[in-house]
Amino acid sequence: MNILILGSDGYLGWPTAMRFSGGGHEVTVVDNYFRRRVSAELDVEPLFPVPNLVERARRWRELTGREIKVVIGDLTDASFTRSLFDGSAKPVFGEGAWGGPPDTVVHYAEQPSAPYSMLDHKTSSFTIFNNLMATTNLVFAVRDLSPSTHIIKLGTMGEYGTPNIAIEEGWLDIEHKGRKDRFLFPRAAGSIYHTTKIMDTDLLWFAARMWGMRVTDLMQGPVYGLETDETAMDESFRPFFNYDEIFGTVVNRFVVQAVAGHPLTVYGKGGQTRGYLNLKDTLQCVCLAAGHPVGAGELKIYNQITETFSVNELAEKIRKVGVGMGFPVEIKSIENPRKEKEEHYYDPVYTGLKDMGLKPHLLTDDVMAGMFETVIKNRGNIKAHKIFRGVKW
Amino acid sequence: MNILILGSDGYLGWPTAMRFSGGGHEVTVVDNYFRRRVSAELDVEPLFPVPNLVERARRWRELTGREIKVVIGDLTDASFTRSLFDGSAKPVFGEGAWGGPPDTVVHYAEQPSAPYSMLDHKTSSFTIFNNLMATTNLVFAVRDLSPSTHIIKLGTMGEYGTPNIAIEEGWLDIEHKGRKDRFLFPRAAGSIYHTTKIMDTDLLWFAARMWGMRVTDLMQGPVYGLETDETAMDESFRPFFNYDEIFGTVVNRFVVQAVAGHPLTVYGKGGQTRGYLNLKDTLQCVCLAAGHPVGAGELKIYNQITETFSVNELAEKIRKVGVGMGFPVEIKSIENPRKEKEEHYYDPVYTGLKDMGLKPHLLTDDVMAGMFETVIKNRGNIKAHKIFRGVKW
Repeated sequence: MNILILGSDGYLGWPTAMRFSGGGHEVTVVDNYFRRRVSAELDVEPLFPVPNLVERARRWRELTGREIKVVIGDLTDASFTRSLFDGSAKPVFGEGAWGGPPDTVVHYAEQPSAPYSMLDHKTSSFTIFNNLMATTNLVFAVRDLSPSTHIIKLGTMGEYGTPNIAIEEGWLDIEHKGRKDRFLFPRAAGSIYHTTKIMDTDLLWFAARMWGMRVTDLMQGPVYGLETDETAMDESFRPFFNYDEIFGTVVNRFVVQAVAGHPLTVYGKGGQTRGYLNLKDTLQCVCLAAGHPVGAGELKIYNQITETFSVNELAEKIRKVGVGMGFPVEIKSIENPRKEKEEHYYDPVYTGLKDMGLKPHLLTDDVMAGMFETVIKNRGNIKAHKIFRGVKW
Repeated sequence: MNILILGSDGYLGWPTAMRFSGGGHEVTVVDNYFRRRVSAELDVEPLFPVPNLVERARRWRELTGREIKVVIGDLTDASFTRSLFDGSAKPVFGEGAWGGPPDTVVHYAEQPSAPYSMLDHKTSSFTIFNNLMATTNLVFAVRDLSPSTHIIKLGTMGEYGTPNIAIEEGWLDIEHKGRKDRFLFPRAAGSIYHTTKIMDTDLLWFAARMWGMRVTDLMQGPVYGLETDETAMDESFRPFFNYDEIFGTVVNRFVVQAVAGHPLTVYGKGGQTRGYLNLKDTLQCVCLAAGHPVGAGELKIYNQITETFSVNELAEKIRKVGVGMGFPVEIKSIENPRKEKEEHYYDPVYTGLKDMGLKPHLLTDDVMAGMFETVIKNRGNIKAHKIFRGVKW
């Protein structure tokens, strides 16, 4: 397959690129280095530096003989986005001929941080602008230039919020006053970032209905970990590993807090329950989705998680492993900076990806111990002041 | 009350401004003249010229002694939008002192045409950008500078699409697997324009939940007519009356087609059923909403229509009146340029506004005859080539 991966510099993007390239696919990666720029601006660089995409693609070629093309540009610029579908884009790395429009686009290219989206008017409106316009430009480029391309879009479980009913996989059959219809599962997100993902879903469903677009939308939970078969090949292949409030996901943050001697910061009562998954499983899910292109006009939605925990359960698991490794881990409830339910019903369905073949890597003590080991090796890089800044909703 | 009306140059905006000003409120109107610019670009000027906002506000002051302040600017510019809430905006007309931040904002300031939103990548992405960023900037300006302001937002019945169940007023109680919750009524729109209104609803609900914003969202059907108590005072007060496919609403278009000897253009089978209302009733509804500010954190949604017709029923009514006035009106089904159901269930609930006091002006033969008379007076202005251009979905 010819695969285009948008947002390839991010936590998930580069591991995904290596996985597809390793599998023999033609891969082109695209990014505008937004995350690097903001990481510096907000003083939230990751635990260890990550080489730029050209450096990583070069090293990947040295080690595997496979070429990942790198294109740098901003998808909110319609002409740039269209250039990826008509062959006029200019890669900064990769000499092979253009392989034609992509069979599959993996769309990660969004401002990915809920706290960033809640800092102020400027970052909120940037998040809405950036995420919506990137998706809009993608949709129209596919419609006009490559209508049979399969779009695999990264959504989020956060689109659903925490409803008092079971969360089905994207759709809900509703009976009302004796009549029936099928609708998108109702959505109500907890941040501007998550709300942009709802808007994306609205748009992608429109594109599927109106123009026969082929879309898989993956409602993903918080991802943890940094090791995949490919990242293990070379240190320069490790993805961004953030431990700050802006870009750090909760498991990664807690492990760094444990190693740094910072109490694990549980927000409020800690009953907030979410579905989680290992970075390895994100790659499995995206590959499964790519291997199962959907029909024309179909919007297929999967809930991409492998298990659920409350924040308290998560903190307790990490404390136990940390203590076993000699760290005197404390758990501390702090005033919840977010507006969210701290105790709630949570019953998501997540069978679709397993039915396609997903073999989950759960958050075992061994997996956590592996994360601790990586963090311990890099503990000299932990900057205590980056751990907590108090972003409020 | 101190009232800010965003999008005041449009079909609804100026009549609304006069109504509030006439009622003794302090009114500031805002527009960027988008519609004028595009009307010229696309050769779809209205049936008669409409003076600019300063000319109309000047004439209004001559006739009533009341001042409507006029501010020209683009709400997608955050600093401009904020200037309307901190007193730094510079009116181009109106000498009175700034009356402080508005008690009520009526938000009409969006690209209002479904066909325009479907012309091409550029107009689609402009519609998404313009509508979302105007609403985003409004939400943040209110949150940061005037948190108790009541936002009255113009949505559209088109957000709901044509579901196979009754369309409740904004919300739906759902029981699923023995548990219950209340959700936004599921939405599925038929154009990019209508989809931006869904996205607005997502955002406004978020703002209500997160920041206690006060929002009334009016799901309006297609409006017809051009006479209100105030527009009848002076020819220069008449609103835009478009008869083209881009900005013309269906009743207005059919009346012009009848007078011009053009067959009434029914799309496909003509069973498409929608809720309609008279311009006079739009003003009533908006005034009722303004007079009933909602509580902090509340998103109140009304279905703003007064009766429903299929396109065939509408065409038949207009044919009958037209024939009675001596026009040999023909009805012609043309290939449907839109992707929509041509026969479908349609059962919207619209009791909320009537319960607040709305007295509907229905589409009687007399009302239609009045519209015919205005069009006949201006028939010399009808440009046949503007009637139909074949915008396809």
